Amino acid sequence: MPNVTFRYEDGTATVVAVTAGENLLEVARKANVAIDAPCSGNGSCGKCRVKFISGKLDTEKTRHISEEEFAEGWRLSCVSTITEDVEVLVPDIASAYKSRMKVADLSSQEEIAIFDRAKQDVEEAGIAFENDFSVVELQMEEPTLDDTMPDNERLVWAIQAAAGVEKVKLTYQVLQKLPDMLREYKFCVNAVLKKTGHGALVYDVLPPEDHQICGLAVDIGTTTVSAVILDMVSGALLAKASAGNGQIRYGADVINRIIESTKEGGRKKLQKAIIKETINPMIHNMCRAAGIAKDQIYHMCVASNTTMNHLFAGVNADPLRMEPYIPTFFETDNLHAYDLGIQVHPDARIVIAPNIGSYVGGDITAGTLVSMIWNKPEFNLFIDLGTNGEIVFGNSDFMMSCACSAGPAFEGGDISCGMRATDGAIEACTIDAKTMEPSFKIVGDEGQKPVGLCGSGIIDVIAELFRCRIVSPKGKFVREGERVRHDEYGIGSYILAFKEEAAGHKDVVINEVDIDNFIRAKGAIFSAICTMIRSLDFDVSMIENVYVAGGIGSGINMKNAVTIGMFPDIEIEKFHYIGNSSLTGAYNMVLSRQAEEKVYDLAHNMTYMELSTDPGYMDEFVAACFLPHTDTSLFPSVTQEEI
Amino acid sequence: MPNVTFRYEDGTATVVAVTAGENLLEVARKANVAIDAPCSGNGSCGKCRVKFISGKLDTEKTRHISEEEFAEGWRLSCVSTITEDVEVLVPDIASAYKSRMKVADLSSQEEIAIFDRAKQDVEEAGIAFENDFSVVELQMEEPTLDDTMPDNERLVWAIQAAAGVEKVKLTYQVLQKLPDMLREYKFCVNAVLKKTGHGALVYDVLPPEDHQICGLAVDIGTTTVSAVILDMVSGALLAKASAGNGQIRYGADVINRIIESTKEGGRKKLQKAIIKETINPMIHNMCRAAGIAKDQIYHMCVASNTTMNHLFAGVNADPLRMEPYIPTFFETDNLHAYDLGIQVHPDARIVIAPNIGSYVGGDITAGTLVSMIWNKPEFNLFIDLGTNGEIVFGNSDFMMSCACSAGPAFEGGDISCGMRATDGAIEACTIDAKTMEPSFKIVGDEGQKPVGLCGSGIIDVIAELFRCRIVSPKGKFVREGERVRHDEYGIGSYILAFKEEAAGHKDVVINEVDIDNFIRAKGAIFSAICTMIRSLDFDVSMIENVYVAGGIGSGINMKNAVTIGMFPDIEIEKFHYIGNSSLTGAYNMVLSRQAEEKVYDLAHNMTYMELSTDPGYMDEFVAACFLPHTDTSLFPSVTQEEI
Repeated sequence: MPNVTFRYEDGTATVVAVTAGENLLEVARKANVAIDAPCSGNGSCGKCRVKFISGKLDTEKTRHISEEEFAEGWRLSCVSTITEDVEVLVPDIASAYKSRMKVADLSSQEEIAIFDRAKQDVEEAGIAFENDFSVVELQMEEPTLDDTMPDNERLVWAIQAAAGVEKVKLTYQVLQKLPDMLREYKFCVNAVLKKTGHGALVYDVLPPEDHQICGLAVDIGTTTVSAVILDMVSGALLAKASAGNGQIRYGADVINRIIESTKEGGRKKLQKAIIKETINPMIHNMCRAAGIAKDQIYHMCVASNTTMNHLFAGVNADPLRMEPYIPTFFETDNLHAYDLGIQVHPDARIVIAPNIGSYVGGDITAGTLVSMIWNKPEFNLFIDLGTNGEIVFGNSDFMMSCACSAGPAFEGGDISCGMRATDGAIEACTIDAKTMEPSFKIVGDEGQKPVGLCGSGIIDVIAELFRCRIVSPKGKFVREGERVRHDEYGIGSYILAFKEEAAGHKDVVINEVDIDNFIRAKGAIFSAICTMIRSLDFDVSMIENVYVAGGIGSGINMKNAVTIGMFPDIEIEKFHYIGNSSLTGAYNMVLSRQAEEKVYDLAHNMTYMELSTDPGYMDEFVAACFLPHTDTSLFPSVTQEEI
Repeated sequence: MPNVTFRYEDGTATVVAVTAGENLLEVARKANVAIDAPCSGNGSCGKCRVKFISGKLDTEKTRHISEEEFAEGWRLSCVSTITEDVEVLVPDIASAYKSRMKVADLSSQEEIAIFDRAKQDVEEAGIAFENDFSVVELQMEEPTLDDTMPDNERLVWAIQAAAGVEKVKLTYQVLQKLPDMLREYKFCVNAVLKKTGHGALVYDVLPPEDHQICGLAVDIGTTTVSAVILDMVSGALLAKASAGNGQIRYGADVINRIIESTKEGGRKKLQKAIIKETINPMIHNMCRAAGIAKDQIYHMCVASNTTMNHLFAGVNADPLRMEPYIPTFFETDNLHAYDLGIQVHPDARIVIAPNIGSYVGGDITAGTLVSMIWNKPEFNLFIDLGTNGEIVFGNSDFMMSCACSAGPAFEGGDISCGMRATDGAIEACTIDAKTMEPSFKIVGDEGQKPVGLCGSGIIDVIAELFRCRIVSPKGKFVREGERVRHDEYGIGSYILAFKEEAAGHKDVVINEVDIDNFIRAKGAIFSAICTMIRSLDFDVSMIENVYVAGGIGSGINMKNAVTIGMFPDIEIEKFHYIGNSSLTGAYNMVLSRQAEEKVYDLAHNMTYMELSTDPGYMDEFVAACFLPHTDTSLFPSVTQEEI
């Protein structure tokens, strides 16, 4: 049996004995070696690179690896077969966009403002910001030989007297802590209560000076996971973090993830990747940053698409992708942290924002809440740009939703120099039509050199390349110049920054494959909008406002998004970026019981349109895979420079 | 730093690096090496033997190790200090009474009869045998493209229709299993329901042919743990097991266990010893024997003394032993298998039979239920002979209870050849007054040679030695003969079986230290009875019946128990052995909601007498530490042979 040695950049290694003939990527996955493979190993993405060190590895040549790179040892693991002992190097960050976890700096007023505003909008619509949690201060008599009441009864009596509730139950957590806490604080403690029917469940006992009760909101995106810890009383943000979804190595999109989850042990593996490897470390870092104990998080809400919340809950997601496309749940009402092993208070209830279909999930229902389109008489469009693009159209009388598979391009995935909007990301770009020289806005301190392109930057670059007639409506390079290059396979690319100008030691480029990937992503969005609006016999001119949400960032240039044909060509003033609405929606659901109820209400009243079975959608999609569109009459405002 | 190598009889070993000067027993405990130490390392019990193999070990000589044994390498670990590298052999069974787990043979009609009778008695007193669990058969329509209801809603609808309940919630277990079960069984499954307020909680979905719902009753004794798995509908026993309490190596009695639990990490360690090392393996073996899945155990009741149930729940038991002796709980109503890591259905509720004081716990309240003394007008006495002896006296109008520390002697502990009532145990004995030759009844097949003495055998042996004037009322050997021997320290012993006659390769003996230990145990019981009855201005002649319970076995000779002064000298016909009443009580509590309620009721109405603060108890105890008693007028029927 040959051995494979996966060596890491930090000098450590994993050694696995395999059967000759096994696929290297499969072996890596079984051994839990993190190699990125957004396409789930079908050879199309070119991300699963490893560097051959020694031994023997049978590998196919592919356009993803240049001759030079091949000579350096780079191989795609998905097209490599093990025949004898082999040693390979696994790159530290398997691809540029799988960035490390980031705990946000909450001194940024912009960050805070987006949550404040989401709360304020919902509150102004008449939703009360009250939840079931409260803290009562208790002063009990210390026991004596004449007063030998057990600790738990003493606590229950004190709570009944202080809070005026009838039936009081204790969580196991409290039973365990109680004797020590009471004796340490001389029978004066604070009790954290959660209202239940006629009584209260005691979640915690805290020292007399401690009144903090916290909640957790999590947006589980297919590509990116974001979360905030908040104060359950004031709503103040205590910490915020984002990270790549640890499931990324099992496929970039929901279908590949589901397929991976159906393999032996797959469901546990995918659940572990999101909970143990992604969310729990985020909680850990946020708690450290905020100086709170994990056990002080008593309530939690997750907003995510239907596949993500099924994989999160560890339930079989396979029926989602097979006719008749049945989810295990739209709503759950009896899920707790202990069930899933989430490292918050074990009795914390986990609210999952409700799904309304196999491909329209809690991310969109939670997001719809904060889009506020449900509270307005005029027709508005709400677009959540994620790996799954999700779209809601409607007003206070009716709402319709649909979802399309856009892929990870908006988050910088499937793009060779793609990355998330962190330091070094080109977030905005203009190109001089004559000289073809670019100018950038780059995330980070002044003087930061470019590393890659984030979603908003890609939109700008493609819009500018098109405007300057550097690329054709089909996305092919049609001008020559210093910054335009064609490789041995004839694939054209534009050099945004030469090696010397870049932060890394290679050129920052965008190539025709990237543009093609992005055109398919934007085409999916635009065709979904059109299919849905046409099905209602409506017209884009009837859209009053477009609320754009997603991790793409506030830097998104709406004019450019229209230029490339991603959004309908209506007045630019009608477009509004509202941030990560599934996270702000989940934040509201944690804070307010009525907000949670409202989301169930929205979900029940939203019509779901299944695009994959709609006969017109594929035609719309094909027509939209142009810059801006095959039917240019749909984009009267879009013009190109005269060169 | 010296290394200690603990070598086991199976050839495996544990190696620990220690600081010179550390105590060998302490090191073994930290390293989780199972060495028996009923006295918790104070040098009194002589059980913590290890055999020196090589290296160097500083050890004190003690009367527990003979010259011959010392020469063979035997050392007491509690009096051994590590100075240099050393290698020792840890005996496979650290002491004779810590027998391995035993899964009972349920073909024994006697075993079953004791449970049947306990149920029948309680049922005849008007307690209904109904519980909250039921199974409904469901036949659902399979989903189609026109009927895309999620699985959980489909199940809820079907249950609402089939069971006529309003509010249906699913456990996480069910959510996880649901999509696979529905598809595997074509949407025809059985649902296990637990009644809740106005609705039902779905505990499980089973294949259409499976209707079995199981419960678990556990008696956690300080020394021995017993358990049964039962059918929640018929009450039939499906499996039964007993095992030594894994906490035994942290001390023989509750006080030593509590002290051990207050050390760093001690609470977790003691909880692990009872749950992970004792109860979970018992569940595993019983499930295998009964051919059921662990997850099919949906309900559980534990009966145990206050210390045991505190340590089981993992709560600080220290306040129990310190003035003013406050338990964390008498009752709990919100404890589940997932809280404690018990390997049954994670949502199984764990009922702990209620405590009524720091030293009168759920073992006695559950036992009182099946003693039936609460349902009779005449005055009866109920005695539970365990490591803690517990006593209830009363009738249908009032009941009083108390507890005394008897030590493990009734279960064969603290006795050099003591063992549980398993194969090879001498369970009955007579001695010829003239020849001093013994005759035995031995547990096991015909021809079984004696291994040691179980509780009932010890009573017989001591009673016979006393009757034959071989030992004095003080328990000292006063006759000479072939079977009587004195060692170098002057300690007398009686050889029940010479090496050649015994199953092992050493004599089966009882010595003066054993007799002394047993006299203290029986003295504790008798003095507790007297103190309580006198406090009521009653007399033993007013006792109509004495119900004796505990692991001592049905073989107990009541006449001999009176002869040694363990029980009051009243008519022998009044004594009844009722088996392990805390286990049969727990069995009833699992099966019947009303039985559970009745036990809470009994607990609330039982007066608790604290013996340790009673000024007369110590005098009674000292007076009772004789055979049969210092005041022989209390035992008119007890006579000795004329030699």
